Amino acid sequence: MNAIGVDIGGTKIAAAVVSPEGKVLNEVRYPTQAIREVKEGFEVDGACLAVPGFVLTTENKVIFAPNLHEIENIHLDEELGRRTGLRVTVENDANAAAWGEFRFGAGQAVDHQVFITLGTGIGGGVITHGVLLRGAQGAGGELGHVTLDPTGPPCSCGNHGCLEALASGTAIGRRAREVANEMPRSALGRLAIEKQVLGEDVTRLAHEGDKAALRVLEETGRWLGIGLAGFVNIFNPEVVAVGGGASRAGAFILEPARKEVDLRARSPSRDLVKIRKATLGPESGVLGAAALARSEDGEYVLGPSKQVA
Amino acid sequence: MNAIGVDIGGTKIAAAVVSPEGKVLNEVRYPTQAIREVKEGFEVDGACLAVPGFVLTTENKVIFAPNLHEIENIHLDEELGRRTGLRVTVENDANAAAWGEFRFGAGQAVDHQVFITLGTGIGGGVITHGVLLRGAQGAGGELGHVTLDPTGPPCSCGNHGCLEALASGTAIGRRAREVANEMPRSALGRLAIEKQVLGEDVTRLAHEGDKAALRVLEETGRWLGIGLAGFVNIFNPEVVAVGGGASRAGAFILEPARKEVDLRARSPSRDLVKIRKATLGPESGVLGAAALARSEDGEYVLGPSKQVA
Repeated sequence: MNAIGVDIGGTKIAAAVVSPEGKVLNEVRYPTQAIREVKEGFEVDGACLAVPGFVLTTENKVIFAPNLHEIENIHLDEELGRRTGLRVTVENDANAAAWGEFRFGAGQAVDHQVFITLGTGIGGGVITHGVLLRGAQGAGGELGHVTLDPTGPPCSCGNHGCLEALASGTAIGRRAREVANEMPRSALGRLAIEKQVLGEDVTRLAHEGDKAALRVLEETGRWLGIGLAGFVNIFNPEVVAVGGGASRAGAFILEPARKEVDLRARSPSRDLVKIRKATLGPESGVLGAAALARSEDGEYVLGPSKQVA
Repeated sequence: MNAIGVDIGGTKIAAAVVSPEGKVLNEVRYPTQAIREVKEGFEVDGACLAVPGFVLTTENKVIFAPNLHEIENIHLDEELGRRTGLRVTVENDANAAAWGEFRFGAGQAVDHQVFITLGTGIGGGVITHGVLLRGAQGAGGELGHVTLDPTGPPCSCGNHGCLEALASGTAIGRRAREVANEMPRSALGRLAIEKQVLGEDVTRLAHEGDKAALRVLEETGRWLGIGLAGFVNIFNPEVVAVGGGASRAGAFILEPARKEVDLRARSPSRDLVKIRKATLGPESGVLGAAALARSEDGEYVLGPSKQVA
């Protein structure tokens, strides 16, 4: 049956009716009443909201959403269920995106997938033995705040040297500004005099062959790889899917990451794992949420040819 | 029904007939023919071998056992099954010990448990949503080789700054010898002139109040905590159980570890988790193996009051 996935961001809501095969049948992108509008004319049996924050999945409640305090501590399932007449569940946005890639994207053919999204911060989601790793309260899969260097740069969480502080889009911008100072004659160095350099500038300059930009992305990729090597050892996954804005740097980041995984992860896990770019882009959230709306527990039959519910 | 758990170490084999409630009915500890002897007089329906090395659980085959090369690449299930008339499975020893603590020890009342064993090396095992995390090949739960400091001390695996290189019994001994040099008048410093200081010496001296020994264990506990904080963020577990020889240092290690987790893990995971000493000691391996012998997939009904199969 069709289901609705809703991806809630700080400034917009995307809602889509999605078929069991992962086809988007109808989609709206605006901040209110999204579910009711998108549903119009479709048979739908449930909806799942992907939310940027900590979700107590056992209670369908957001307990902390840094950019969306107004949805904290409300039983969204009851509230929205009453207004829309649908069974509504709530999930962390990175977990939903991970489930999207697992069902319809980079992890389609496997049972064990680590998903990591490199944006302003770093989000993560893990599927192990075909089951979404939610943990006891739904806060599991928080991959961005493993410590890789206790004396490293400060992190948004208050600590130092988290993966997020070393390999997020924000970290790329920070490191780019440092390298621009060290290499003032590079294209990166010259750009840094004109404007605040962002992650996307670095990717563009790397494509143009600028050595400073290439150095920033290689360093970032190595830190990413040090983190991923740990996840490969921990989960023995078939696929690590890397998504988010900074993944647009592609091989500039993924190649050094793969090298570090080859160096640091252990056999047989390192020999099995494929580290690849996520394939669904910004759609992973709605697609994953819609699939989770169909499955009450995020559990599907195991096996390389997954059954579509 | 009763089952046999077999714990294979480098120098000995322990085999026990274990009841469904976790009671050891009969036990032998010697290197050959353990299963046949321990079975004598008991009704038993299966056996599981806990092996120190990488186990392809899908094939019941040990692919790498650093101290037991003679059991590598043999179908132990067929070999031993034929000789004993039992259904035989094979599991990594730390995973079996984790399952033992989960069924009968420190994680008895929960569905999500991280187990870590601090010995010569560091082993790990994770139960998430009541399922043993084996990963795609059975190599999952390898918690000792996450990188905490890329420029840290060398690790047995060839890398630098792995958790194992910073918080194992071996790491305690190494760090103790360094601190002994810096504090030559401490009890630790004086002992280091007489003999090669080991982890157990440090624990003894810490109990006697020696400042150098206390410093070594506090530093070790902090590194352990930096690693555990990552696992708490990743798994959102109810319990982290710490076992192995070095866990005998108890609060000297666990208190600084807890402090670091409070500092580095995120809410709500850090508020939920209990970091406690494993309770089964060296029996965790046979008990876990026997329980796994009963369950073909390491999966039990979820819920705080686990059903005994």
